[in-house]
Amino acid sequence: MANENTELQQPSPRTVVIIGGVAGGASCAARLRRLDEEAQIIMVERGPHISFANCGLPYHIGGVIEERDALLVQTPQSFRARFNVDVRILTEAVDIDAGNQTITLRDLQNDETTEVDYDALVLSPGASPFVPPIAGAELSRVHALRTIPDMDRIIEACDTATPEHVTVVGAGFIGLEVAENMVHRGIDVTVVEMGDQVMPNLDFEMAAAVSDACRRHGVDLRTNTQVAAIEEAGDRLTVRSSDDAEFNTDLVVMAVGVRPEVGLANAAGLKLGEHGGIAVDDQLRTSDPNIFAIGDAIEIPHLVSGATGFIPLAGPANRQGRLVADVIAGRQRTYQGALGTSIIQVFDTTAACTGLSQSAAERQEIPHQTAWISASSHASYYPGSESVTLKAIFDPDTGRLLGAQGFGRDGVDKRIDVLATAIKANFTVDQLEELDLAYAPPFSSAKDPVNHLGAVAWGIVEGQRHVASWRDLVAITDDLGIVDVRSPQEFEAGTIANAINIPLNELRHRLDELPADRELVVLCKEGLRGYLATRILNQRGFKARNLLGGYNLWRLAAA
Amino acid sequence: MANENTELQQPSPRTVVIIGGVAGGASCAARLRRLDEEAQIIMVERGPHISFANCGLPYHIGGVIEERDALLVQTPQSFRARFNVDVRILTEAVDIDAGNQTITLRDLQNDETTEVDYDALVLSPGASPFVPPIAGAELSRVHALRTIPDMDRIIEACDTATPEHVTVVGAGFIGLEVAENMVHRGIDVTVVEMGDQVMPNLDFEMAAAVSDACRRHGVDLRTNTQVAAIEEAGDRLTVRSSDDAEFNTDLVVMAVGVRPEVGLANAAGLKLGEHGGIAVDDQLRTSDPNIFAIGDAIEIPHLVSGATGFIPLAGPANRQGRLVADVIAGRQRTYQGALGTSIIQVFDTTAACTGLSQSAAERQEIPHQTAWISASSHASYYPGSESVTLKAIFDPDTGRLLGAQGFGRDGVDKRIDVLATAIKANFTVDQLEELDLAYAPPFSSAKDPVNHLGAVAWGIVEGQRHVASWRDLVAITDDLGIVDVRSPQEFEAGTIANAINIPLNELRHRLDELPADRELVVLCKEGLRGYLATRILNQRGFKARNLLGGYNLWRLAAA
Repeated sequence: MANENTELQQPSPRTVVIIGGVAGGASCAARLRRLDEEAQIIMVERGPHISFANCGLPYHIGGVIEERDALLVQTPQSFRARFNVDVRILTEAVDIDAGNQTITLRDLQNDETTEVDYDALVLSPGASPFVPPIAGAELSRVHALRTIPDMDRIIEACDTATPEHVTVVGAGFIGLEVAENMVHRGIDVTVVEMGDQVMPNLDFEMAAAVSDACRRHGVDLRTNTQVAAIEEAGDRLTVRSSDDAEFNTDLVVMAVGVRPEVGLANAAGLKLGEHGGIAVDDQLRTSDPNIFAIGDAIEIPHLVSGATGFIPLAGPANRQGRLVADVIAGRQRTYQGALGTSIIQVFDTTAACTGLSQSAAERQEIPHQTAWISASSHASYYPGSESVTLKAIFDPDTGRLLGAQGFGRDGVDKRIDVLATAIKANFTVDQLEELDLAYAPPFSSAKDPVNHLGAVAWGIVEGQRHVASWRDLVAITDDLGIVDVRSPQEFEAGTIANAINIPLNELRHRLDELPADRELVVLCKEGLRGYLATRILNQRGFKARNLLGGYNLWRLAAA
Repeated sequence: MANENTELQQPSPRTVVIIGGVAGGASCAARLRRLDEEAQIIMVERGPHISFANCGLPYHIGGVIEERDALLVQTPQSFRARFNVDVRILTEAVDIDAGNQTITLRDLQNDETTEVDYDALVLSPGASPFVPPIAGAELSRVHALRTIPDMDRIIEACDTATPEHVTVVGAGFIGLEVAENMVHRGIDVTVVEMGDQVMPNLDFEMAAAVSDACRRHGVDLRTNTQVAAIEEAGDRLTVRSSDDAEFNTDLVVMAVGVRPEVGLANAAGLKLGEHGGIAVDDQLRTSDPNIFAIGDAIEIPHLVSGATGFIPLAGPANRQGRLVADVIAGRQRTYQGALGTSIIQVFDTTAACTGLSQSAAERQEIPHQTAWISASSHASYYPGSESVTLKAIFDPDTGRLLGAQGFGRDGVDKRIDVLATAIKANFTVDQLEELDLAYAPPFSSAKDPVNHLGAVAWGIVEGQRHVASWRDLVAITDDLGIVDVRSPQEFEAGTIANAINIPLNELRHRLDELPADRELVVLCKEGLRGYLATRILNQRGFKARNLLGGYNLWRLAAA
């Protein structure tokens, strides 16, 4: 019988050593075995677990994921049995001799070292939690969260010491997920964040929706604040912050960010990138032709800007692992980069982003324009619909979609995935308006929020929509006339300072009440009635702009 | 102050008459007003309601949508107040004099006719339920469901006559949604469907998941069956079917399909298309330059195949209405066609499709290949994950994605929307594997089901994956060896006839138990372990194919 294994055009290396057995490393090992039954594959992991669900750790702390075993996706035994891979846990790679293609491994249980010759070496070391130089960061009640043992220690501390209050330092993914899960345990939580917002990958007003969710659920969130010191105070701890505030707490979780683990690569003389990560080419090869690197420790290009940097996410790490296995097996593959698509659910609110943020576009001086819409997650007459707010960042001339963000209580993940696909396709925003998306009342509307976002953004590109953003109304100047076209009831419940109220349906008959000498900004709840009003006003000779996202977004971000 | 209304380069027609006040018609009127404050816009609707939620009608019958008013998205009064449109309900367009640009309208309340001169006319007549020539179809207890009054009559019949049993004729969207909602009311339901499957836009095995959901929830579903006659039998009805069966029922809902309402267009001498719908050009203009047509009555190109036909869906109708308003206002727009993306939720199951189906590709003799995967809707360790099954239809040579379908209990809408976007972008299936989608445990996995689908499909294009489909095992011949690589427990609970059981993790050591003289088909639960086994076997010299979708899909579609 003919051997069907036609894709292996060249003999594969005999021995492949993979350093790191989580995410990218495990993906690489499994893929390589599928491509090559004969190769000797050694997967080395410093910790006691491989291929565990690191994204699930905070949820087991909160009891959302009840069974600890559910986090152990593969055990060393199951991985070995299924993939015929030599899995070595509790083993550290301590030295690479790139010239001789040899790596030295140390067994952490008996401290013995072994040298292994490799034909190809894959580095998947990941990134470790950064512990800032704060007095008290070394105390036993100050934790980080990266591994199963880290998680076990935090749970044990919660179970045995029954803390009343936990302090989380850092308001990124892990910090906020830990904060939420501590609230689930019934523990009071303070989150201390150095920056002026949570979730630095989100733009300010999107992050504001996450902050709002945290505060509505009782989290004491302090932005623009640094921890100066942590001190023992009897059986509690005292946290002193940069603003000279101080408060008592029982447990501290440090989640201020991660640093790529480049020690081994650096010692081996591999080239590092401009941000200090491992530099790789478009086959994810390091400066040594026999050594590849994947995951959180490498620098990769951003698919939209082309700028090189860290995109420490599980999806890209897994795809990088597969790609390197392909390359080692002799297949032609090139890595193009990542969009950095990411999502977080905090309490009742989901926020997500993909591609270029507005703040990144500003930092990198990339020309851009922005649009916001709010719409129902599905037909508003069908039970359970929620408001979804979406943002597009796009080229002001061509309309090319550069990035997108969103928040809401339902349906955000779907829209961000569609928008991530559209960015990958190099779509212009008018193509979003034309997308043929699935509609039935439980799922969407005949005009999906993504269609709506495209229509608004394209109207801006065409010069047909005259818009204002919440940023334009952070400080309100006297040369603007503000017209609130909502109902009197909505107006009474709260509006923007100095606004006058003319409900949309009365506008055509009350034009004489408008200040003729000023530019107008029109405002409604979420931006739809404001658009209709602006169209009327522009055609009647007024210079009027519609506040995108309406009063709701302004109140969240600017009030 | 300068008039900012720069986009209206040419004077717009003074009077625009729109026939039909639902979906496309109402979208057209609203959009035209936004573009042109001055135009006289007359919107004519035969029924008593405009812009009602026709997709919501079945759900109010079942009480899922509690308030009838929720279905009335706009009233004639609210539409008039907001858009300054002359809304004429209970008014029928009876004659078009295209040469003189005059339309005759009849007021159905007093039978008076009026002639209106138009500059542009937009036809949005929709499609009416087809009532097959069955004896008894005219009985008062036989209903159709298109309008609010239709719905009111069905609800009244259910409330007053308290039927024990309802018969639904036709298993498309409306038929199945009515069936589900009758079950919600506690009424026994028989669905009679002429074809061999429900939901003709879905491929057979996808539709089988919907049938399965219906049957699991107590619906008596009879495919390959026609209703021969409906007869009165005391205070009940008797339904006789083509297979000489007969059963009693209390109410019949006819939902066998719709026919485009082309009477007015035809009488006016407008050109019809090859399928009997109104023919339009790429500006949605009919054969008369002053008359446009939109919605369910027109023939449009399918975006993938280019074939012209009906795509009677709300999303395309709305976009067509907006486009025609743009064209009338003097903007350059062209209509490219639709993908026919659609979705249905029936009980606990959602099924959806976009682009070309496998059956359409076969009918139209378009070269294609297919792939199926099943995967978790989100990280399986996070609560609430469900199995999602996806199918790709793609070009066997280039890998271009032609169509996609899916079913499951959660997350189907998201994946179909991503796939619809990918088809619109002319993606090849390897590009699906590279998509950067949003991952956190509540939403997806690091490898989203769409990535997974792309990997499987691309492996087929590259010739690296050797696969079998459920169709290959409808009849099992002796020249195939069937190897079930699941656990003995799974094997005992049910497998395919003649299969032998070798669990995946034992396969490398038990190769001598395999029949060396036969082609092998490898089988697991959903196709993942089978793939790993096939890779081992192919590299060890066996001719082996993996059953895509595994035992689960085979049992649903072929058992």
